[in-house]
Amino acid sequence: MKALVYQGPGEKVWTEKDKPGIEKPTDVIVKVTKTTICGTDLHILKGDVPAVTPGRTLGHEGVGIVEAVGDAVQNFKPGDPVLISCVTSCGKCANCKRQLYAHCSDGGWILGHLIDGTQAEYVRIPHGDNSLYPIPEGADEEALVMLSDIMPTGLEIGVQYGNVKPGDTVAIIGAGPVGMSVLLTAQFYSPGRIVMIDMDPARLELAKQFGATDTLQVGEDDVVEEIMKMTGGLGVDVAIEAVGVPATFDTCQKIVSAGGSIANVGVHGKPVELHIEELWIKNINISMGLVSTNTTPMLLKTLNSGKVDPAKLVTHRLKLDEIMEAYEIFGNAAREKAMKIILTA
Amino acid sequence: MKALVYQGPGEKVWTEKDKPGIEKPTDVIVKVTKTTICGTDLHILKGDVPAVTPGRTLGHEGVGIVEAVGDAVQNFKPGDPVLISCVTSCGKCANCKRQLYAHCSDGGWILGHLIDGTQAEYVRIPHGDNSLYPIPEGADEEALVMLSDIMPTGLEIGVQYGNVKPGDTVAIIGAGPVGMSVLLTAQFYSPGRIVMIDMDPARLELAKQFGATDTLQVGEDDVVEEIMKMTGGLGVDVAIEAVGVPATFDTCQKIVSAGGSIANVGVHGKPVELHIEELWIKNINISMGLVSTNTTPMLLKTLNSGKVDPAKLVTHRLKLDEIMEAYEIFGNAAREKAMKIILTA
Repeated sequence: MKALVYQGPGEKVWTEKDKPGIEKPTDVIVKVTKTTICGTDLHILKGDVPAVTPGRTLGHEGVGIVEAVGDAVQNFKPGDPVLISCVTSCGKCANCKRQLYAHCSDGGWILGHLIDGTQAEYVRIPHGDNSLYPIPEGADEEALVMLSDIMPTGLEIGVQYGNVKPGDTVAIIGAGPVGMSVLLTAQFYSPGRIVMIDMDPARLELAKQFGATDTLQVGEDDVVEEIMKMTGGLGVDVAIEAVGVPATFDTCQKIVSAGGSIANVGVHGKPVELHIEELWIKNINISMGLVSTNTTPMLLKTLNSGKVDPAKLVTHRLKLDEIMEAYEIFGNAAREKAMKIILTA
Repeated sequence: MKALVYQGPGEKVWTEKDKPGIEKPTDVIVKVTKTTICGTDLHILKGDVPAVTPGRTLGHEGVGIVEAVGDAVQNFKPGDPVLISCVTSCGKCANCKRQLYAHCSDGGWILGHLIDGTQAEYVRIPHGDNSLYPIPEGADEEALVMLSDIMPTGLEIGVQYGNVKPGDTVAIIGAGPVGMSVLLTAQFYSPGRIVMIDMDPARLELAKQFGATDTLQVGEDDVVEEIMKMTGGLGVDVAIEAVGVPATFDTCQKIVSAGGSIANVGVHGKPVELHIEELWIKNINISMGLVSTNTTPMLLKTLNSGKVDPAKLVTHRLKLDEIMEAYEIFGNAAREKAMKIILTA
């Protein structure tokens, strides 16, 4: 089979590789029908994730058809269409039993990280019963790929950890795919105002189409001053960081109101300065984390009932064997006006 | 009347001052019967709280007898014994209506800060109906003084913000009066293990008497290593910072488990380094804040029902007019083995 293989910092190849087989009785082999590229894959390619070693197939998102199942698998059989969760979970350990699948003692985010991933014709999914979801009848496969990672990340780490409530003023910093997923899922909880903040006017325009009530352009607008004007000097109820650099985390500290929340969604490579000398008296909450995908069943229901349309996030469609070109496009997302790229086998 | 008056950094005097009168119809004048000194008063005396200007009477804790009430006061009449809350709240603003009294638009922590405080023979309490509590029949006045500030601070900012749950392993860093209040109130929620961490062996011994299951002595024990041994390498469910310096906040970051909480109770004068590059993936929560005293009614019920004995925290008893000596003792708390000092008028 063909797979996108990491070869060390800056190097990748679309190459022939052995098709995966059942290794443990709980494994499921999936023939990938659609996958995509994540910002995390770009981090890995930069060499930012040293746990990923040369030879690893990348990718942790996708949908497909069950090809083979181990003897212990009960929920799936060959031929079943499935959604692949970016997080593998045994369902049995202490963290799984509190739905903290991100910290499963025999899983977590391992796909395209510690084991071979989904940017391939076939993928082995450990603990298949817990890590795959049956695809609902007639559902949109492109929308479903958004449910592998970015939609639950936006919902769990942004919206739910940030405790977005009806009527709230919410600021989202970073209008990339995950920031947009925060924007889409925040609307489940009826905030009064959602302010999207980014450098890119095209992404801000898209954010308006996706439901942002206000936008602020970094470099053009004085973000802190404008937020204070909008909120009568109080600041926002929830500030959501979806970039992963110290400057945007710092903006969150400046715009959060007394009693408010900062929800960090961005992946950071450096420490940040926490202004606890000013914030201790403001009764704020700061959250952060890796998605557990415990909201996938909820997201499937919202998708089926038409409460959300994650397929909006798809801007480009290529064939799986055009993945090298797709990486080129995704690596120049602003220039290419790219959000998510669907790769079809 | 006599009052303890701040005269600028390092300077205070026990001196004659005009007795306060009703200024607004919602005011209550209280004759102070018992008060105490808080670590915050020492911060003010160091000049760390520039909003406190020379001439200010210090103190924000105490019990007393109502002397006079404004025309709008409905809950109290002269002669009523009352508990004074360290936080003044109008009960009517947006923050009061969500019980965030710390950020009352016409109150918050103002006593002994922006207006004259309780280290005096009489004190004026604005918004008396909301900022005073009737003292229950036969209650222990010394215990009640602990309910002005430190007990609700420990409960709200440490235990409740930290989300202490039955069976949890909780670490408290700092065995001062507020850390001890965290220790006493954490037990309401039946944690499995409470580890008190401090430099002072005498305070650690006291912590054991107050319910700590384990103690670690900074300087003697390798705190992080010992915590990891105790928790099978996982870390604690809740790490509570009750000191207010970067080193102890940093220890909290090292000992918190995946899915756990850091509750900051300490008052900080400097920023801290937040290791978000390591913690983002750990699904942790960080909270901080000023006490709202919204738990005072709950604490009164626990006191009345014998569920807690805050009078344990009282180590010294002096007369109100010995307050200059009391400050000497409290300023050398470790040497004097002092926790809370009751001053009786």
